[in-house]
Amino acid sequence: MVKNPSSIPRNTDQKQFLTILSREEALARFEAALFPWPVPTETLRLAEALGLALAEDVVAQVDVPPFDRSNVDGFAVRAADLVAASDLQPVRLTLNMETIACGSLPQLAVLPGTATAIATGGPLPRGADAIVMVEYTQPAEGAAIEVWRAVSPGQFVSSAGSDMARGEVVLRAGSVIGAREIGILAACGTAQVTVARKLRVAVLSTGDELVQPGEPLQPAGIYDANGPIVSAAVTENGGEAYFLGAFPDDEARLETAMREALDSHDVLILSGGTSKGAGDVSYRIIGRLGQPGIIAHGVALKPGKPLCLAVCDGKPVIILPGFPTSAMFTFHDMVVPILRRMAGLPPRVDAQTSAQLPFRVPSELGRTEFVMVSLVQGRDGLMAYATGKGSGAITAFAQADGFIRIDAFVDHLPAGAQLPVTLFTPQVKVPDLVVIGSHCTGLDLVVGKIARQGISVRSLAVGSLGGLAAAKRCECDLAPIHLFDPQTQVYNTPFLGEGMELVPGWRRIQGIVFRRGDARFEDHAAPEAVEAALADPECMMVNRNQGAGTRILIDQLLGQKRPDGYWNQPRSHNAVAAAVVQKRADWGVTIGPVARAAGLGFIPLTQEHFDFALVADRKERVAVQAFLAALLSPDMQEALERAGFSRAC
Amino acid sequence: MVKNPSSIPRNTDQKQFLTILSREEALARFEAALFPWPVPTETLRLAEALGLALAEDVVAQVDVPPFDRSNVDGFAVRAADLVAASDLQPVRLTLNMETIACGSLPQLAVLPGTATAIATGGPLPRGADAIVMVEYTQPAEGAAIEVWRAVSPGQFVSSAGSDMARGEVVLRAGSVIGAREIGILAACGTAQVTVARKLRVAVLSTGDELVQPGEPLQPAGIYDANGPIVSAAVTENGGEAYFLGAFPDDEARLETAMREALDSHDVLILSGGTSKGAGDVSYRIIGRLGQPGIIAHGVALKPGKPLCLAVCDGKPVIILPGFPTSAMFTFHDMVVPILRRMAGLPPRVDAQTSAQLPFRVPSELGRTEFVMVSLVQGRDGLMAYATGKGSGAITAFAQADGFIRIDAFVDHLPAGAQLPVTLFTPQVKVPDLVVIGSHCTGLDLVVGKIARQGISVRSLAVGSLGGLAAAKRCECDLAPIHLFDPQTQVYNTPFLGEGMELVPGWRRIQGIVFRRGDARFEDHAAPEAVEAALADPECMMVNRNQGAGTRILIDQLLGQKRPDGYWNQPRSHNAVAAAVVQKRADWGVTIGPVARAAGLGFIPLTQEHFDFALVADRKERVAVQAFLAALLSPDMQEALERAGFSRAC
Repeated sequence: MVKNPSSIPRNTDQKQFLTILSREEALARFEAALFPWPVPTETLRLAEALGLALAEDVVAQVDVPPFDRSNVDGFAVRAADLVAASDLQPVRLTLNMETIACGSLPQLAVLPGTATAIATGGPLPRGADAIVMVEYTQPAEGAAIEVWRAVSPGQFVSSAGSDMARGEVVLRAGSVIGAREIGILAACGTAQVTVARKLRVAVLSTGDELVQPGEPLQPAGIYDANGPIVSAAVTENGGEAYFLGAFPDDEARLETAMREALDSHDVLILSGGTSKGAGDVSYRIIGRLGQPGIIAHGVALKPGKPLCLAVCDGKPVIILPGFPTSAMFTFHDMVVPILRRMAGLPPRVDAQTSAQLPFRVPSELGRTEFVMVSLVQGRDGLMAYATGKGSGAITAFAQADGFIRIDAFVDHLPAGAQLPVTLFTPQVKVPDLVVIGSHCTGLDLVVGKIARQGISVRSLAVGSLGGLAAAKRCECDLAPIHLFDPQTQVYNTPFLGEGMELVPGWRRIQGIVFRRGDARFEDHAAPEAVEAALADPECMMVNRNQGAGTRILIDQLLGQKRPDGYWNQPRSHNAVAAAVVQKRADWGVTIGPVARAAGLGFIPLTQEHFDFALVADRKERVAVQAFLAALLSPDMQEALERAGFSRAC
Repeated sequence: MVKNPSSIPRNTDQKQFLTILSREEALARFEAALFPWPVPTETLRLAEALGLALAEDVVAQVDVPPFDRSNVDGFAVRAADLVAASDLQPVRLTLNMETIACGSLPQLAVLPGTATAIATGGPLPRGADAIVMVEYTQPAEGAAIEVWRAVSPGQFVSSAGSDMARGEVVLRAGSVIGAREIGILAACGTAQVTVARKLRVAVLSTGDELVQPGEPLQPAGIYDANGPIVSAAVTENGGEAYFLGAFPDDEARLETAMREALDSHDVLILSGGTSKGAGDVSYRIIGRLGQPGIIAHGVALKPGKPLCLAVCDGKPVIILPGFPTSAMFTFHDMVVPILRRMAGLPPRVDAQTSAQLPFRVPSELGRTEFVMVSLVQGRDGLMAYATGKGSGAITAFAQADGFIRIDAFVDHLPAGAQLPVTLFTPQVKVPDLVVIGSHCTGLDLVVGKIARQGISVRSLAVGSLGGLAAAKRCECDLAPIHLFDPQTQVYNTPFLGEGMELVPGWRRIQGIVFRRGDARFEDHAAPEAVEAALADPECMMVNRNQGAGTRILIDQLLGQKRPDGYWNQPRSHNAVAAAVVQKRADWGVTIGPVARAAGLGFIPLTQEHFDFALVADRKERVAVQAFLAALLSPDMQEALERAGFSRAC
């Protein structure tokens, strides 16, 4: 973290700062420094061992079954007695005066010409060598049965030890204990097993700005997503995560925390603190924690270059990049294999599928690149749209279906390439409805309604023009848009491309936002307010990005003027409100519900039309019809009105 | 369970006993009786919610990022100031006297001609509209920098709310919370979520014969594998299993236990007690537990016909078949979908692959059949060998890779059919070495050694002749055999098929086993002992199966005689020892180590050769070479001798 201007490192220093290793070289050095690692073990009750790896071979201490067992309900007999049995000439056998239930020990031998009733699972009595099913018998006079089928010796009998033999190795060290393995172990009487115990992984976030979820957000603070996400990923990979909290960049305090964490855990993972800024202290501390220290600081990964791998006196210390997406890719690619090997677990297996790239994907030569993709069902199979590339947005990570890996020596992937896609979840579930374009809280209401009907929706907020581009490429069913054409003075319709239809949505009030009490705006109508703002050189505006419907409105307000702040062009209604609340700007244009939520003053300007460009080819799809029905339903129109939107009529 | 002969139901009764429903009909009736089910919810801290399904939509309460954020280390600038900046003509900007670190609130505006140092993650100060990376700057005289690159407005800035906008639905009800979802929730400050809570599933075993693992095995007792295996499978499918123990077939006690279980849990699963024997009490009790009671008792599944599905006052009660494999197939096919739906979880996704059947697989018309398969890498892809069909052996279940499903209206699958195989684990891992044939504890020593070298071994005990058949079909690398040819008086070699080589293994002492103190055998040599046994009509033998090497030895001992017990023909050394220990027979022939482990008297007969038929084609494979090297190593020869085997030389 940068503390004062003089601490900003010089350009020349920067170039020497990180010695970038290839992904493979970094992994190889890390493994060489860490292994052999003495896998820690513990002895657990069977139910507690689920999901862990056996540390020792398990030998059956008993035969399974422990005796010759009947597999059906029927009668224990001597096969030789029934050689001539048939429907026409049933054989009569005298019943022995006992019945062998499960768990009852036979007392009488089956002598020639006799039979003993036996239940499924009962132990075979002496003298018997087969079971005749009850279905092929009938009771006869004088405590006897008649049998009309011959049986072969051993029929319906599982002999002792036929499943597991005493002394046999039934499971080997390294086997992961699932329900099937639990069954094997229980069946031969094993109540406890020695397993590789779960790795104890300390997770620690660093950064003065971090606030824990649930706490109030301080100015300039952000919520710590990395601590929870890394802890969850450790748990998902069979470790035991201990989240120790977020620490400010106080070298002495952080060092104490890192030393304590390393003393009582197997692994220490930090996130944050790998920026190139000179304020970072974590990696300086690592040098003092133990030998050999830092193995790799800077790996040719994208995202994930600032990854730092260290081994301190036999324990791994890892600093993940600060952005959550970068942290997760490096964690899965570089850290998970190490953690699993340390825990005696087999390599992780991610589900894969194959999909085609609709567009060329450029890639940086020299870095192994992970590109998130969203899958869409195309005419000839799955299409993989690169998504959220380089954005660091955690929502992009959550909305992607998986990722493709581009090797370091490849500078692009061509359009049309068929590629393996590693899935984030085991099943490729192409959503029923894809909505790409502008976001509106009203849209959440409609989508929520059809989601409750069991329709899966992917909704991506990329702005109106981004949505139209997606619709043109048939990547979505609907593109929510709010674009004003100054020439025709018409909303949205002039922007529709070929094969698109307009579905009317709702109206939103656009207006000028300002901080309550600002005399330049309070109690003024829009024209006077804008005039006052433009007259004051200290008054700063916030604009919107090119392509936003609001931008067109702003340019109309300003005419040829370019007041201070004009070049600050965020991409959302919320960003405008935030800039004004946080005093980075004094006014801007956004929609009513956003102004209200931010507690800002609001001068209404005009009604904006929030509509949908529908890809006509997709109109008849069930999910599209469900969306249209939900949109038009009276309860939805009421709900939209309650939320501050008005009818599109 | 069968209590006395008169309780054995008559054949005519039997046919009315179960009304078999098709799998689909049983499921449909079960779902109709159970749903709609009010999914129980609870509010949990984020980390505790991992793996559970959200019960409510989650709306972002803040913008993410909460302010316009710098994505790099550098300087906050006005883009308009740098329009003309180049390598040749760098632009000089005066530094504002503050540095914006993460978490620090900017105090000074960036006026035209000035710049403020900013770290990655720092909030953009008022007036700035872009970041110039530190790499394109250098310090200049008098608290200034020179910049030699132009920047576009918004460059390296993520604007407030660009990731998540306040008021936006970021996750919908029904989403399963994984690490990615934890990241989203934490990033917008969510500390607690309302989720569908884990189902509380009571698991209860029934049967007089059941002994819990870890307890000593009573005569006629067997270890309870179903309780642990069902509990583990409940856990693996997102439930919370409460194993309540095994209950004997005492109607009053069992009813009390079932009522209490149902009062305090969401679901009750019993295993055992669905045999057709009239002693079963569980389903009689169900009729009294609540409405509507039993929905299906008897489903056209193989294995799994005796499955019983019930709903008692809104809660499901399920009785699984008694054999562990049947219990698991019915659990996964019929119960898991219900449990997941009740818990608000999406359907389970099992990994699948495709493989070819080497042989015809017959199937019973009218029942949906699950056939376990082992996968072997063939020349043209994976081959699926049906395994453990109908055996009920839990080891068969554990050694299989997955299963194929045969529809009720299909009576066989032809050889060569290409079929989907549902895998028991996500990855198809064809073992490095396949050993099929006779089992010996000596073999465990050799396999254990190469397993520790990281070679995966599948070892199936099917007897010597079964092993030779597998070797002939190239299903295995090695077949352990011990077959004596009476004509040539030579072990094993005469039995080798084309393309097989003999690998010498070790020698095992075969001998007569008897219970200590039996005067007919104690202190006698083999010929006299056999003579005494044959002379006593009360003396019962136990034989071995056709194809066993030991059977040939026994037939030599007996000549033309067929004493009582001759037709009792179990398939293993251990079964012979068990029959004698449990007094079902008085003598038999088995190997020394087994006799010793069983505590039986032993009269040595001959040395048996335990060798390996090697498929010559496979000799050069790494795993085969590793096996041969391990076998011949001096430490292995010593270990074999210590275990009671002698050298094969």
